[in-house]
Amino acid sequence: MTGEPRLADIGEFGLIDRVSALVGQPDAVIGIGDDTAVLDTGGPEYTLATVDMRVEGVHFTADADRRSAGRWAMVSNISDIAAMGGSPAYALISLAVNPEIAIREIEQLYAGLIEEARRFGVCVVGGNVTRTSGPLCVDVTLLGHVPRNEVVLRRGAVPGDVLLVSGSLGGQAAARLSGRTVDPPTPQVHLGRRLAAARLVHAMIDLSDGLGSDVHHLAVCSGVGARLTEGMLPLGPGVAEIARELGMRPRDLALFGGEDYELLMAVAPQYVGAAMAASHPEALTAVGSIVAAEEGVSLETADGRREALLPGGWRHF
Amino acid sequence: MTGEPRLADIGEFGLIDRVSALVGQPDAVIGIGDDTAVLDTGGPEYTLATVDMRVEGVHFTADADRRSAGRWAMVSNISDIAAMGGSPAYALISLAVNPEIAIREIEQLYAGLIEEARRFGVCVVGGNVTRTSGPLCVDVTLLGHVPRNEVVLRRGAVPGDVLLVSGSLGGQAAARLSGRTVDPPTPQVHLGRRLAAARLVHAMIDLSDGLGSDVHHLAVCSGVGARLTEGMLPLGPGVAEIARELGMRPRDLALFGGEDYELLMAVAPQYVGAAMAASHPEALTAVGSIVAAEEGVSLETADGRREALLPGGWRHF
Repeated sequence: MTGEPRLADIGEFGLIDRVSALVGQPDAVIGIGDDTAVLDTGGPEYTLATVDMRVEGVHFTADADRRSAGRWAMVSNISDIAAMGGSPAYALISLAVNPEIAIREIEQLYAGLIEEARRFGVCVVGGNVTRTSGPLCVDVTLLGHVPRNEVVLRRGAVPGDVLLVSGSLGGQAAARLSGRTVDPPTPQVHLGRRLAAARLVHAMIDLSDGLGSDVHHLAVCSGVGARLTEGMLPLGPGVAEIARELGMRPRDLALFGGEDYELLMAVAPQYVGAAMAASHPEALTAVGSIVAAEEGVSLETADGRREALLPGGWRHF
Repeated sequence: MTGEPRLADIGEFGLIDRVSALVGQPDAVIGIGDDTAVLDTGGPEYTLATVDMRVEGVHFTADADRRSAGRWAMVSNISDIAAMGGSPAYALISLAVNPEIAIREIEQLYAGLIEEARRFGVCVVGGNVTRTSGPLCVDVTLLGHVPRNEVVLRRGAVPGDVLLVSGSLGGQAAARLSGRTVDPPTPQVHLGRRLAAARLVHAMIDLSDGLGSDVHHLAVCSGVGARLTEGMLPLGPGVAEIARELGMRPRDLALFGGEDYELLMAVAPQYVGAAMAASHPEALTAVGSIVAAEEGVSLETADGRREALLPGGWRHF
């Protein structure tokens, strides 16, 4: 009404920049800006802390299976801990619900949360329930830990590093777009731990928004550029077919589909073989390389052209 | 529609009981059921973790000052850390907002959050922003710490203990009911630390729902009963007058008004003097005593009758 700037004008990352400025320099090993905060609580390991809110109508539909919504909410957080090379340990669950919701539905939501928590040794140690007149909101805080000399950040990539991605890309988006119910992928906790313990990785991030967007976060945090190669992208099963049916390019699903929850990492060329061996039985695929910041982030397409790659992943606003 | 049980039928605490059963026995020092979780992260102190979501239209109005809403959201969590005898340290802030919200409003909300955080040495180290079609939700996760041998729980009160309360009661409710803008009270972090370090307290809880409700939590967790005395309740400034104007009993504001964020504690009789000395300059007032579980929780009214005190504080559903 007033013409003053709205959140929609600056988006999620614009807001995060402004909030970071308000917060100032935190008294933490790592504050805002990585997959998790890294805290020194005096023990032999760093404490990792992350939080992720999911809202009905945005991240899941009102008629979606509540158990599945719960699983997704836990998985997205576990994946953030994996991206630091850490082990998840404790969860707190905040819920805002309409008082008229059936208890059965809330129990299904918790059952999904707890199912994924148990798979990864996470204990639910606290939480909070409040009422709302609006959509259901579930906010999961996850705490984890990582040995002090093994934590892997988004920053640390250097020109010449090879960009490796775990698993395959676009499968979640393809299933979602073709109207199928999509179970959450398995977050790469064990892979992240193996790579961190082997100290083979310069920088790492999990793919929540999509490779095409998340590679920008890694590049910006590291102060570098990146080149991806379309022909090297490991497409998930059926991604090429579903993309064709929908009149889309398979690479757009792989780059911008989101919710793959795979790991993207930068590894020095001489350690790529060792990283692949340490990852066994999980596959790593080279998808590009780190270059100087001035080159920006680009994609070499299948027909040999080089295009600027814009951060066009999942947009929250 | 189906006649199946709704959340409104069992309420917040009924739901917490069900969720606790789903979660099972946590691998934590203290899991669900105290003011905060108590975690052993390997350092010289325990890590404390708590989370509290506040929703527009429930905890604050849509036209409320955003800075004030932010202050309240941080204060309610800081008070939970205070109730454990701990020091708050790190916050993560999750926000669900309509994309059309003015950036200024979000910045005001964060300014309020950060204002209270800074007062107590809390660093904001992470968070998350998502969109919603519904009311604004702000969820604050707060981490703190407490020396291992100083943590104070809700359990531990024994018959014969004196119940002491800090500060005064009912002032927040009186101001709210008389339509005034209410600044949040100062959470009793320093008092909680002094009492915990002096090891003078058997059990402690912060008064968020109201003494009349929160005394039940302390009693249930400790497996005891409690007697409160109406004539001993320290009424906040103006509480008696405002209650009279509104045709209410002052004791109902003190018992059930909520959001006092004072501390209620059980102290052995021989240490009451020492606890009061350790609390200086903060006043402690004896409001009753701990009795056997069979006696339940009761109130001796001003005219000398003893009434069962029902947990009738702030109801979330």
